[in-house]
Amino acid sequence: MTDSEFSDKKILQSWETNAAPWTRAIDTGEIVSRKLVTDAEIVAALLEHWPGSVLDIGCGEGWLGRVLAAHGVHVWGIDATAALVETARRRAGPLETYRQVSYTALESGYPGRHFDALACNFSLLGKESVEQVFASAPRLLKGRGRLVVQTLHPAAACGDAPYRDGWRPGSWAGFGSGFSDPAPWYFRTIASWVELFQRHGLKRVTLREPLHPETGQPASLILVGSRAS
Amino acid sequence: MTDSEFSDKKILQSWETNAAPWTRAIDTGEIVSRKLVTDAEIVAALLEHWPGSVLDIGCGEGWLGRVLAAHGVHVWGIDATAALVETARRRAGPLETYRQVSYTALESGYPGRHFDALACNFSLLGKESVEQVFASAPRLLKGRGRLVVQTLHPAAACGDAPYRDGWRPGSWAGFGSGFSDPAPWYFRTIASWVELFQRHGLKRVTLREPLHPETGQPASLILVGSRAS
Repeated sequence: MTDSEFSDKKILQSWETNAAPWTRAIDTGEIVSRKLVTDAEIVAALLEHWPGSVLDIGCGEGWLGRVLAAHGVHVWGIDATAALVETARRRAGPLETYRQVSYTALESGYPGRHFDALACNFSLLGKESVEQVFASAPRLLKGRGRLVVQTLHPAAACGDAPYRDGWRPGSWAGFGSGFSDPAPWYFRTIASWVELFQRHGLKRVTLREPLHPETGQPASLILVGSRAS
Repeated sequence: MTDSEFSDKKILQSWETNAAPWTRAIDTGEIVSRKLVTDAEIVAALLEHWPGSVLDIGCGEGWLGRVLAAHGVHVWGIDATAALVETARRRAGPLETYRQVSYTALESGYPGRHFDALACNFSLLGKESVEQVFASAPRLLKGRGRLVVQTLHPAAACGDAPYRDGWRPGSWAGFGSGFSDPAPWYFRTIASWVELFQRHGLKRVTLREPLHPETGQPASLILVGSRAS
């Protein structure tokens, strides 16, 4: 893999390629840790403070927005991949609005609008694009709003590589058939994730480390950032 | 091991027993990860904000106080183990003061005094006694003061046991001869450590995960908590 294949652009290309198998994997509950643990955990982390409005950043086919809307939350969802947004739109209820917007255009996509929470559920995979989300977050949040990020737990996801920020090659290992051209991803340590929130004005960061019931080890890391108050 | 042997009291007993071999281990640099990484990291984390005064909680034989004093910091050190405090006192320079004070008596030990930083370097091993340190911390700190804790990195220290808070049996494996009667210790997840700061008013918590140069994996976790500002 050449250097240029470790890029935010390559991630978008991979999602274009894999939108259909991804939607099928979500629909059929193929990703076991999501069904067992992480779906419920991101919903709980988001609903904890009774948000009236949530912007779902990297909404994919929209399952999270549909669940939140069923709890009475007004949901706006964005994704850079046209095919996923199209699916989310087709399935949307009256409280949901989905648009194709890239992470770099987040703020201009929602001029003047402020949300109770921003949700990023396993959707912050790149480098610059992720930093752009954090740079935009404070201006998209209401004063007491929260940025809620669920990601692979760094301690578990690190594997045998050195525990430091950097690009890693992608893999669809563990996924069913139909996937191809895996996306690279940018590894961040726990300290780096926390620093990313704080550097962008979200000084108070709380953590959740939901456990996989079968292994007793963290199934993910959820970070919730807000302005100090 | 019976339940009663998992207690804060048992930890103190073990330190009474092992004060002499511990002092020898520190003096001779026997604990490799301390020499390679964690000694320098706690010093750097403490000096970062130019503290005038530091309370070293669980100071042991006082190496950290001596280093800080060499940088012009006024150091107060406390430890529950008489033999360790005696050694620290014998070696102290003019900027250092050491006293035998238990964690449960921290506040009454320093009535009305406030510090720029509280240091806990691998010295928060128990359950209730640690919670007592956190309960006392806000009243021992100046307004912009910091509580700086270095501990085993939970992801590395967890081993094969479930990743959740609880007592673990002790071990002196990896230490030289002369040690006996290892102390149990109370495991806390990263999320639990952060929550412990925030529950006691130290809402802003930053993390450091210094790497062991030989393994590329975290040698420790350093948490720095302060009031939101």
